This record gives sequence, structure tokens and C-alpha cells, in this order.
Amino acid sequence: MITIHGMNASGNCYKLQLLLSQLDRPYRWNEMDLFNGATRTPEFLAKNPNGKVPLLELEDGRCLPESNAILCYLAEGTPYLPDDRWSRAQAMQWLFFEQYSHEPYVAVARFIAKFLPADHPRRAELPRLRERAHQALAVMERELATRDFIVDAGYTIADIALYAYTHDAPAGGIELAGYPHVQAWLRRVESQPRFLAQQN
Amino acid sequence: MITIHGMNASGNCYKLQLLLSQLDRPYRWNEMDLFNGATRTPEFLAKNPNGKVPLLELEDGRCLPESNAILCYLAEGTPYLPDDRWSRAQAMQWLFFEQYSHEPYVAVARFIAKFLPADHPRRAELPRLRERAHQALAVMERELATRDFIVDAGYTIADIALYAYTHDAPAGGIELAGYPHVQAWLRRVESQPRFLAQQN
Repeated sequence: MITIHGMNASGNCYKLQLLLSQLDRPYRWNEMDLFNGATRTPEFLAKNPNGKVPLLELEDGRCLPESNAILCYLAEGTPYLPDDRWSRAQAMQWLFFEQYSHEPYVAVARFIAKFLPADHPRRAELPRLRERAHQALAVMERELATRDFIVDAGYTIADIALYAYTHDAPAGGIELAGYPHVQAWLRRVESQPRFLAQQN
Repeated sequence: MITIHGMNASGNCYKLQLLLSQLDRPYRWNEMDLFNGATRTPEFLAKNPNGKVPLLELEDGRCLPESNAILCYLAEGTPYLPDDRWSRAQAMQWLFFEQYSHEPYVAVARFIAKFLPADHPRRAELPRLRERAHQALAVMERELATRDFIVDAGYTIADIALYAYTHDAPAGGIELAGYPHVQAWLRRVESQPRFLAQQN
């Protein structure tokens, strides 16, 4: 059975819980205590020199980091990653958009606002993070005004990746009131078969 | 014939020039003047609502943004993107690493140091960017100590993506002296058939 090393509070880890639920695929979950250095131990760094979760570990010990790379690997050959070359290219487009233009702002704002003390100096970053988060949401809003899911072909891992932090953006002080199409899309994702809500 | 909308000075755009040279595939290059708002025109935003280059435009007008998604699309079915499922997963891992842990630091430090005036306030970001850039290079160094290219299977688009900004890291004040395996890898990339040096 595969193992996911992760942390329930992390949206990047939740992506995999959501996909594996929808694939109805069994896995072992190894909850890591990141706040107490669990990813900096020699044992974990041997599995992932970049010291991050989530990390997929196969039965034979091979390891794969990077949440969106793991999504691609697990979804290969399933309806969640289209076979059609152009649809697949669009899914990849949004997976890279998520990691480059969305996660560094939406997720980091959420982390600072939700998990750091009220007087933490990193709170000074919040205005800039929220501004960039709204830029990413505005791009999604324009796209989701024209179709049900982020890729023409339907519900894919690109939706899963974008859902992971978008649904909890308000926890980072990023209100979704101005994005009606994004909100409708969140509800559509939540109505997919075997949807699993985040556990934190 | 395909068109690439891009800017020669951009490493993200250079990735595509390098792959297309190695594929020996003809294309039209549309040089965009980013410093004068070429990507903010209504015409360009209609092609890419995220307002960024590079952008791939097919003959029939379909457009694909995100440099690494374009690399995947163009390399599909060629030796630059492995068919083997695990090798492909590893290539994806490094493509996401590049956009999340490498480009935001190595590329942005290079941009600030190389293109902004000596008294620009963004220079205050350089120490933090360089620290994170060195973290990314240290991860690459450990991996490249064990093999010739970043993925076991050999030279792939993951090397192309990582080469694009790594080779010009010193322009951002990120010295490569401490990374002998990274330096040896840069020379191996440059010795690949139909290698093309960046034009700026």
C-alpha cells in the first residue's frame, strides 16, 4: 500500500487526500508534526532532500515529492487527468498556475493569519499577499465565468489543486464575496462523487 | 506554424527557445516589450488573461500559457519527456520544484540585480531571495552528485527548465562556486545536441 507523509492542516497535503478519496484508493497516512521539525530529521531528509510534505512513498520505498507531481502520478490513466493532449496541457497549465501564482499568496496568507500569533512580525506580509491572492482569484473568476470547471474537459486534478487552498482563502483574510463564479465552482467541486472535506 | 510570444531576456521564455532548438522545430517568435506594457493590452489579455509570457499560440489560435506546461506539451512523444510513468513523475517533480522553490528566488534576484536601477527599493529583497536561491541550489547539488541529469532517465525538459535560470544565477549575485556538481551539470546541458545559448 502507498504511504502519504503529510499534515492534515496543509492544503498541499489535502489535495492528495481528496484525490485518493475520489479514486477510492487505500493508503497509509503518516501525520508529520512540522512545527516540531519532523521534516528536518535525517530519516525524512533521506526520503526527501527538500524537506517538505506531502511526500508519496511507494511500497518499494521509492519517494515522490511535490503535491502536483504526485497528483499527476496518481491520476494517470484515470478520468481526473485527461488523455487528450490539449486537455492535458490545460490541466498542466493550471497546476503550474496554482503553484506559482496562487499557492504562494493564498496559502501563505492563510498560514500566517491562521497559525501564527497575532503579534507575529510576518503579519506585515499580509497586505501584499492578499493583493496577489486577489489577482489569482480574478484570473480564476474570468475563466470560471465561461465553464463549469477550470479545464474545458471537466473536473480534473487541476480543480483539486485549486480547490485545496481556494476554499479556505477566507481564513487568510481573502474574502470570496467578489467572486461569484469561483464560489459556484467551489460548490460544484464539493458535489463531486466521494468528495472529502479537509480535516482541520 | 506555432508562435511563441515571449521576451529574449526572460529565462522562462528561453526554456522554449532551447527545447524548440533541440527538437529542430520551426516557430515564429513574437518579441514582447514587457517594460512598455505589451502584455497588458486588451489584445494580449484576450490570449492570456494572466498577462504573462511565454505564451504558446497554435496555428488555429488556441493559446497555452505557463512555461513548464508548454514544455510538457511540446515535448510529449519526444525523448525530452520520458514515457515511463516513474521517470515522467520525476520530471514533473522537478518542473514543479523549479517553479515553486527555484524560479521565485533565482529568477527574481537576477531580475532585480540585472534590470532595476542601483537605487531601486526592491534591492532590499535581494538578501532573502539569495538565501532561498542557495537553498534550491543546495537541493540540486545533492541530487546532481549522484547522477548526470536531474532525472535518472537522462536529459529531459526538467533539465531545460532548471538550466534556464541556474546558468545565469551569478547575474543575480548568486555565486555557483560552492556547487561543483551543478556546474558540471551546466556544462553537460550545454554539450547536448542543438544546444542554444540564451540570446541576451
